[in-house]
This record gives sequence, C-alpha cells and structure tokens, in this order.
Amino acid sequence: MTAKIIDGKVIAAELRARVAEEVARVRREHNLIPGLAVVLVGNDPASEVYVRSKHTQTQAAGMASFEHKLPADVSQGDLLALVAKLNRDPAVHGILVQLPLPKGLNTGAVINAIDPAKDVDGLHPNNAGRLAGGFEALSPCTPLGCIILTKSVHASLEGMNAIVIGRSNLVGRPLVQLLLNENATVTIAHSRSRDLPGLVKKADLVYAAVGKPEMVRGDWLKPGATVIDVGINRIPKEDGKTRLVGDVAYQEALGVAGAITPVPGGVGQMTVACLLVNTLRAACAIARLPKPAV
Amino acid sequence: MTAKIIDGKVIAAELRARVAEEVARVRREHNLIPGLAVVLVGNDPASEVYVRSKHTQTQAAGMASFEHKLPADVSQGDLLALVAKLNRDPAVHGILVQLPLPKGLNTGAVINAIDPAKDVDGLHPNNAGRLAGGFEALSPCTPLGCIILTKSVHASLEGMNAIVIGRSNLVGRPLVQLLLNENATVTIAHSRSRDLPGLVKKADLVYAAVGKPEMVRGDWLKPGATVIDVGINRIPKEDGKTRLVGDVAYQEALGVAGAITPVPGGVGQMTVACLLVNTLRAACAIARLPKPAV
Repeated sequence: MTAKIIDGKVIAAELRARVAEEVARVRREHNLIPGLAVVLVGNDPASEVYVRSKHTQTQAAGMASFEHKLPADVSQGDLLALVAKLNRDPAVHGILVQLPLPKGLNTGAVINAIDPAKDVDGLHPNNAGRLAGGFEALSPCTPLGCIILTKSVHASLEGMNAIVIGRSNLVGRPLVQLLLNENATVTIAHSRSRDLPGLVKKADLVYAAVGKPEMVRGDWLKPGATVIDVGINRIPKEDGKTRLVGDVAYQEALGVAGAITPVPGGVGQMTVACLLVNTLRAACAIARLPKPAV
Repeated sequence: MTAKIIDGKVIAAELRARVAEEVARVRREHNLIPGLAVVLVGNDPASEVYVRSKHTQTQAAGMASFEHKLPADVSQGDLLALVAKLNRDPAVHGILVQLPLPKGLNTGAVINAIDPAKDVDGLHPNNAGRLAGGFEALSPCTPLGCIILTKSVHASLEGMNAIVIGRSNLVGRPLVQLLLNENATVTIAHSRSRDLPGLVKKADLVYAAVGKPEMVRGDWLKPGATVIDVGINRIPKEDGKTRLVGDVAYQEALGVAGAITPVPGGVGQMTVACLLVNTLRAACAIARLPKPAV
C-alpha cells in the first residue's frame, strides 16, 4: 500500500479561492471589506518574506492589507500605541504582530494588548480560553490548517482516536481542543510520555508537532492511519547542502499510512490561507454578520 | 486485592490546615489578610448550604469572608456593579459568584466581568486560556482537588497514562491541562468515543466526570489503576429513599483498582479546600509575594 499524499498546496489554494468568494459576497451584500493589519518590527529576513507573502495573499483574496513596519529599536510604548490604534480602527478586522519580536520587547504584553476580537493569530489568552472552553474562538492558524487537511481525507472525525505529539501553545494544545470539537478521542503525548510507539500504534490520526527530524518511524504507525506532519526541520545532506524534513520518517510512513502530508508542501502551505479564514471570520463577527461559509 | 481508599475528608482537612498555616504566615510577615467575597443571588437552598460552608471554612482558615446576598430579581446591571466594586476593593482577593444564577441573568457576562486576578473559581476565559497555554493560572477547584487526591497516592505523575472521561469546561477540559502540567500522557474521552472500556484499560489514572451513575465498570480497569471519581449521582434505593453514587461502580472497582475515591467522601470534599488555596494564591499574587507553599 502506498499512502495517499495530502497536497497542502492544492488544498490551500482551494481554501483561498473559497475565502475570496466569501469576501466578494460580504463586499457585495454588506459593503464590508475585511482588513488585515500586519505589524513587522525590525528587519529579520525570514519575517520579511512571511509578511510579504501575507500581504500578497490578503490582497489576492480581495481583502484590505495594511503593513506597519517599525524599527528594531522601537519602544514597547510605541508598539503598544500602534496596537491600540489598530484596535480602534474600524477598517482593521485582524491584527497580526509578526513573531519573534526583537529582544527587549515584551511579547506577552503585546499579545495581551490586541483586541481578542481582532486576534487572528489566536494567541490572546482570551481566545485560547474560549477555545479550551469549547466556545466559538479565533484559533491559531497551524492547528486550523491541520484540521482542514485531515477533513480532506475524512468527512467526519467523530469517534476516531487521535494522538497529538507535542504540547506547544502554538500547535499541540490548541489542536487538542479543535480535535475535541470534532468529537475525536484525543491523546496528547510529549517528551515525558512512555512507550510513544505503542501510543502512536493505536491512533487513526497522528499529528506530529515536536520539531525532531523524522522522529516518528513508519513501524510506529497503525496501517491506514492518517498522518499530519507539522514539523519543518532543516538537516544536512551528504553534498554539504541542506534539505527540509518533517517530524515523521516520510519514506517509511508512505508504505504504512493511509494518507500523509509531505514536508514541504503540507501543513506549511495552510498557515497563511487559515490566516485569511480567521480575518474573514473576525470581520463577520465584528460586523455581527452570520459566520461565513468557510 | 482491595484498593486503598483515598479519603477526601482527611486530605481536605490536611489541606485546610496547611492553608491556615500559610495564611497565618502572610498575616504575620506581610500584614496581608486574604479575603474571599461570595455573591449569592436568590435563595436556592442548595446554594445557600454551599455558601454557608464556604463562609465557615474561609473564616476557620483565618481569612476574611465577605458575603453578598442579592434578590433573585436583581438586574444584570446591579449585579455587574457589585462585581466591579469587588474588583476594586483591596480587601477582596477572591470573588466567587455562586452558580447557577437565576434565569434572566447572563452568566457568561458576569464571569467575564470578574477581574481574572480575583477569579478563584478559575472560570474566566483568561484563566482558562492561561491554563491551556501552560502558564500560571487560577484553575477551577474540582480539577485541582483531583490532582491533589492523585498525588496523595503518587508523588509524581510523570509519564503515567491518564484518561479523563468527560470534557466539561468545569472539570474535564481543565483537568487535562493540569495533568499535562504534571507531565502525564493524557487521553480525553467522551460520549462519542469508541471502545471506552478498551481506552480505560490502558490507563494508570482514571478520572470519571460524566455524571452517569456507575458507568465505569470494574472490569474496565487496569489492575492497580488509581481511580478518581468526580461523579455525584443520586439514585433511588429499594426502600424508596435515595443514595449517592459516583460515575464508577465502586464495589466492583474496589477489587481491581490500586486506589479509589469513594462517593461521597472523595472529590466533593476537596472543592472548598481548593477554593481556599486559590484565594490564598490570588492574594499572594496580587500583593506580588512569592507563591505560597500550598
């Protein structure tokens, strides 16, 4: 058996197209233009690439994109003042402060300052709490992408046994909540778990989010399992160059899994598309419109 | 084998004694008197009993106890005004609004109005979010009691397999977070889970919080497992009277489990004691003192 490959690039493109349709509809029917403000502090090259990509994709979906670039030595007070201004700005429905922030700035205080209704990164404790409580909430983009990829294979996750490996705030913990909302039975494992291969063996759905290259081996998997690989690790090649691998030994898993996401081209593709989903949802919620069809 | 019976009454009394010691210390060393304000709306007889018990135990621990009784037909605005006043009152470190509120009052809005730093019931989304994010937080009292009871048997829960049956906001979901903080591997199961007996069979620690009388059978358990029964169900007896049973078939479980909490006399005993713990912790945090030794 060779696993079906879950093509993140194709699924993300479809998702962006559905967002664009809904954006066109709310513009037409409600004269509402969802707007995303991205704040970039300093000039980290990787962050600049991400921010440019977000800008392009936001505009391509028919939304308004606002970029705010601040120098690396901006004061905490000036950064908080910008966030407060964006909180008040009726044209802005989503606020994303690109992380990591330069040293000297208090990331927690900045995230806490964002209006939870505009927190499209889903990082504000209020959103995390609403998500953990099973309420409507803006959830972090990567876990949201994981769920959408899984549902490209399984229409319903109800009653399936899922394992989430890794308990980070950004991925593992919110992913548990989203899986519970889908009525899956969820096990959350981590570096202190005993017999991880045995735990993985029982799971219909495997989410690897630990940041350890190829840690999950093919023979750990239950035959036919769906594997969502969140890891993106750069490792050296024999020729001295590097390549990207996930947290799952992909070649081994291909022969056992029922479906699997590649790295690159899997989960990573979904993040910005999910940011657009969150911005659209935030705009509709702020305007007291029904939840959009995406 | 007969299971060790985990005596909630004894453990709660020990906990209250440790709280009282710490309260005496912060009074002596820092001139700080932790204060708990309880708000009771209407005159539900069960709620009145709870509130009286909280009042007595709070005073017995050397803390200040403030009771606020409002009529059942109080307006939302007046209730919110009282919460705002308690938020500002420097003598009040914990605010508990006794639930359920009479119909017509918006419970969510009232909980959201409580200063998260004084939210000793751990219900504010901000606390739920901090807990879900793995940060220091005031956690709901019943899950906190479950952890303390478990640790009366096991000094460390690291690497143990725990199953939480039930995903309520008040118990199941926050309990998952507390177990993760203890480095347990956690599975959360619920009404949609498949093969619940098979899932329970693998668990070293079993938490039943579903509200279904004696649902978890003895032969579901792994021999030697520790069983914490959160359920309190009233069922009819043959003589026409009623008796209390948990979510676990206690007599069956006694022969299989390594340790088990009785109902009554188990988890239920811990709730008010944990409320005192939270009030002490909140008072120390607000006064910027180190975390107390309980």
